[in-house]
Amino acid sequence: MTTLAVDCMGGDHGPRVTLAACRHFLEHERDAQLLLVGQPQAFAGWKHPRAVVVEASEVVAMDDPVEIALRRKKDSSMRVAIQLVKDGRAHAAVSAGNTGALMALSRYLLKTVEGIDRPAIAYPLPNAKGGATTVLDLGANVDCTEQHLLQFAVLGSALVSALKHVDAPSVGLLNIGEEAIKGSEMIKRAGELLRSAANSGDLNFHGNVEGNDIYKGTTDIVVCDGFVGNVLLKTSEGLATMIGGFLKEEFSRNPVTKLAAAIAYPVLRAFKSRVDYRRYNGAALLGLRGLVFKSHGSADALAFERALARAYDAARNNLLERVQARIAHARPLLAAGEQDARAANAVA
Amino acid sequence: MTTLAVDCMGGDHGPRVTLAACRHFLEHERDAQLLLVGQPQAFAGWKHPRAVVVEASEVVAMDDPVEIALRRKKDSSMRVAIQLVKDGRAHAAVSAGNTGALMALSRYLLKTVEGIDRPAIAYPLPNAKGGATTVLDLGANVDCTEQHLLQFAVLGSALVSALKHVDAPSVGLLNIGEEAIKGSEMIKRAGELLRSAANSGDLNFHGNVEGNDIYKGTTDIVVCDGFVGNVLLKTSEGLATMIGGFLKEEFSRNPVTKLAAAIAYPVLRAFKSRVDYRRYNGAALLGLRGLVFKSHGSADALAFERALARAYDAARNNLLERVQARIAHARPLLAAGEQDARAANAVA
Repeated sequence: MTTLAVDCMGGDHGPRVTLAACRHFLEHERDAQLLLVGQPQAFAGWKHPRAVVVEASEVVAMDDPVEIALRRKKDSSMRVAIQLVKDGRAHAAVSAGNTGALMALSRYLLKTVEGIDRPAIAYPLPNAKGGATTVLDLGANVDCTEQHLLQFAVLGSALVSALKHVDAPSVGLLNIGEEAIKGSEMIKRAGELLRSAANSGDLNFHGNVEGNDIYKGTTDIVVCDGFVGNVLLKTSEGLATMIGGFLKEEFSRNPVTKLAAAIAYPVLRAFKSRVDYRRYNGAALLGLRGLVFKSHGSADALAFERALARAYDAARNNLLERVQARIAHARPLLAAGEQDARAANAVA
Repeated sequence: MTTLAVDCMGGDHGPRVTLAACRHFLEHERDAQLLLVGQPQAFAGWKHPRAVVVEASEVVAMDDPVEIALRRKKDSSMRVAIQLVKDGRAHAAVSAGNTGALMALSRYLLKTVEGIDRPAIAYPLPNAKGGATTVLDLGANVDCTEQHLLQFAVLGSALVSALKHVDAPSVGLLNIGEEAIKGSEMIKRAGELLRSAANSGDLNFHGNVEGNDIYKGTTDIVVCDGFVGNVLLKTSEGLATMIGGFLKEEFSRNPVTKLAAAIAYPVLRAFKSRVDYRRYNGAALLGLRGLVFKSHGSADALAFERALARAYDAARNNLLERVQARIAHARPLLAAGEQDARAANAVA
């Protein structure tokens, strides 16, 4: 039996969406058990033999500053869900709430794994090969050093090996050209460090990749600092929305184009489902001493269920142990980052 | 009469594409004159009353290192085209060649405007409002300071005011959240500097924007460092290619979907033309004491003509004088960047 702690209050839609997703998820996963965390009134009339309600009196709002989530709302559904992981009562926590708060609470309650300075957010983006490219960091860390990028590479490799059953997933370093001499000073140093890791057998380092390689699917994993990652994610969302909008506008321009749309409907629906971001929902917060998954805040039930499924797969495939094993192996290379990590954990 | 110097040898396709574009451009722009630069055999049989061939014996290859373009091929078509601008014989130069070489040669021959440390590449990206968002820098500068971002904002404002006839185009600072407290340390300092510039009337600063705002069209201009800009451009290209590929695949899956495609053809064509990158071809190299425009290397005749048209519009609308006037006005704020610029010009 694998148990997930679900922050049922998080996200733009709250329990209406999260609980619908939970019911559907339980119907499909017969070995799953859920701890549903939230305010009691949210669960009125809700019952399932493999679901247990855990009450929490507060809710972290989507726009709450990190400090409020961390210092004030000590009985929030988000915090209680993470605490259940820390206490060993759940294998992973899932929330669609405020990313900053989720990261801060996870880090504060769970601490980072030894050798990891900062946790990272890893997100699967669809690629032209029909799979997904795992990109990290997507927004947790804005000022990164080359040591952090190496840590992201090790963490991402553990995630992909757990979820995709690939032993040595390939890692690309996001850069502005394929040649090793390209990029900022930090990126060049990161390239050297990743090459050393490849030489010592800790990573399957492909080399530099460019932005288009993410969607081509050139490598399983792409590492970048959180600023760049956040920009590329939001830019992609913006572009996909614009393209979708243009397509819709053209097909609804006049009665003739509307007729064409009706005829092409099955094709357009198949196309839409292929680019549906909901299929790729569920970002992993990596580098913590416990599993936490983040759903998009605007997720509907289908998308939130996808995030539950990813957390469930990660827990069943021992993601945490894999992360720890990989980090232990890469220890000599990660050594420089370790002191920072201890200091950061002590401060948090 | 406005004169453009055209590097006819540059780009993936060379004279076949550039000369076809030149002919079409001359037919449409009755006040334009072209200086066609290249190896003599490229122009065999080519004649137009408003075109003059300027011979250059060498060609900068698409993969030539900057040093080769700068120190070895001293009679390259690219270099000669830029020299024509420096000598006052052309109002602007246009090339589809190697970006790094074009930037290095432009900087070496033309030098930067006083107050500008580094030239930037400004690129128009389509937005949902039906216009274009001008993004800079797109790859020329990888390690930027807040002073550089301010310079980009001033340069971008001059470009958009010249090409779109908007007096005070709005500027967004690309960040990972709208709040002023977000982002890396450099970005926060850049935000402060841009706010000061807005207060002193030098910029119409909107505030922070996120990646999706580029395609929403929230501001006329978005500034970012060249690393982030290059990543977002390449990521966008990759995503658009993937989405286009998926759409094509779905419509060619079987005879029924192919029939649907035939019926929907006019709509799909209209859609394709709206997202056609060729309509947005022509990046401006800004901050130099002369106008240089860069076409995409893979440009076809339609796309290259678009780059010619942008260079032509910029020249006719006195982009250079506008840049200088704006920079003179923003002088006190830019002062800190000036010393670096002098040093850089002296070295180049």
